[in-house]
Amino acid sequence: MATTRAGRPRLTTRRRPGISARDEILDAAAELFTTRGYTSTSTRCIAEAVGVRQASLYHYFKTKDDILSALLHQTVTPTLEFVEQLAATEPPLTPAEKLHALASFDGAQLLNGRWNLGALYLMPELREARLAEFWAERERLRLHYLDLSRATVAAQPTAYPVGEEAADLPFRLVESLVNIRAAHPDRQRSALPGHIADACMRVLGVPAEGIPALRAATDRRLAVPVG
Amino acid sequence: MATTRAGRPRLTTRRRPGISARDEILDAAAELFTTRGYTSTSTRCIAEAVGVRQASLYHYFKTKDDILSALLHQTVTPTLEFVEQLAATEPPLTPAEKLHALASFDGAQLLNGRWNLGALYLMPELREARLAEFWAERERLRLHYLDLSRATVAAQPTAYPVGEEAADLPFRLVESLVNIRAAHPDRQRSALPGHIADACMRVLGVPAEGIPALRAATDRRLAVPVG
Repeated sequence: MATTRAGRPRLTTRRRPGISARDEILDAAAELFTTRGYTSTSTRCIAEAVGVRQASLYHYFKTKDDILSALLHQTVTPTLEFVEQLAATEPPLTPAEKLHALASFDGAQLLNGRWNLGALYLMPELREARLAEFWAERERLRLHYLDLSRATVAAQPTAYPVGEEAADLPFRLVESLVNIRAAHPDRQRSALPGHIADACMRVLGVPAEGIPALRAATDRRLAVPVG
Repeated sequence: MATTRAGRPRLTTRRRPGISARDEILDAAAELFTTRGYTSTSTRCIAEAVGVRQASLYHYFKTKDDILSALLHQTVTPTLEFVEQLAATEPPLTPAEKLHALASFDGAQLLNGRWNLGALYLMPELREARLAEFWAERERLRLHYLDLSRATVAAQPTAYPVGEEAADLPFRLVESLVNIRAAHPDRQRSALPGHIADACMRVLGVPAEGIPALRAATDRRLAVPVG
């Protein structure tokens, strides 16, 4: 279905944010998928929302699934890059320092996109094999959380150790920002990722007196490029 | 669309769990909604899955939305009744005791239904006004969590108080069982609600040494009728 006509005159003037027609298509699709639903949104609806012909849209994306796949990758790729930056930081960070920074960064990613794309994660339609690449990436992110969480638990000298099951919860706490955003679209959210990162520490048994320093370090780290 | 023909001979023999035809319809719809998607499932699909005529289905539910509404209520109603039982318990329970029991009970509800109905919560189609009654019930449950969480935070004599934002997290931690179940359908899950309840305590700053007693009290409470 690819076409070379992407340069043809547009039906209307550009009206969506983004430097390229591809970005405009993604933005329009994200709005429609998250407000009307994936199944109810056709590629024709998306083309109309952008103000381009369907043939132009097919120049960038062969199928509606391809658009969905690109959008879902946006929710994971920057965070996976951040994980690599954290791993390369010298002197090396402790697992708790890495996890606190990761949860804050990832939470901000989930909250600050224009549309709440994480709300699509639970759609039965997303369990399809054609999205296997996205799910593999997201599982890779979950396992990074899990490794850091386990190492954080192991580093706590506590008489009441938290169970192994707790190590999966920081990933889930960050993910819950998707639900919070869906339920309270108007709530002021900028402080939430930091609070979630603190909560991740408490869930893993990090003593309360150690958490303010972790928060301060994360704030410094996210204010300037890592590395 | 209601009909009086519900008693007519069935097309096939009964093959789903449930004591009534209504329960069979709900079970079939829950399976289809959570595996194929809500929009992709017609009332005809549901009738076929149960093995009844569409007219019989309309005797019980006027629209597909009515079926969805009944299913969603099932995810909230038993827990709201449990909240009332907890409130009436003598001698009165502390907020932490109530919250621990609530999180364990609610978590078990979300995990033990035959289908992962909570996976429907984020569907854009569910933000519709016709489901307002369900959303009001669920918000009522969230506010119960919030009240108990705030009271639990207030009761902690800590030099490092947790922020007000943390009070929304126990509800979200329990809800994350929906995501865990969707991601790991084969995982052994019976111990998870208890672990989530413990995590709720840690998120709210309850000292680690107080948590085993809370868990033991909840286990006793859920093993016998409350009251």
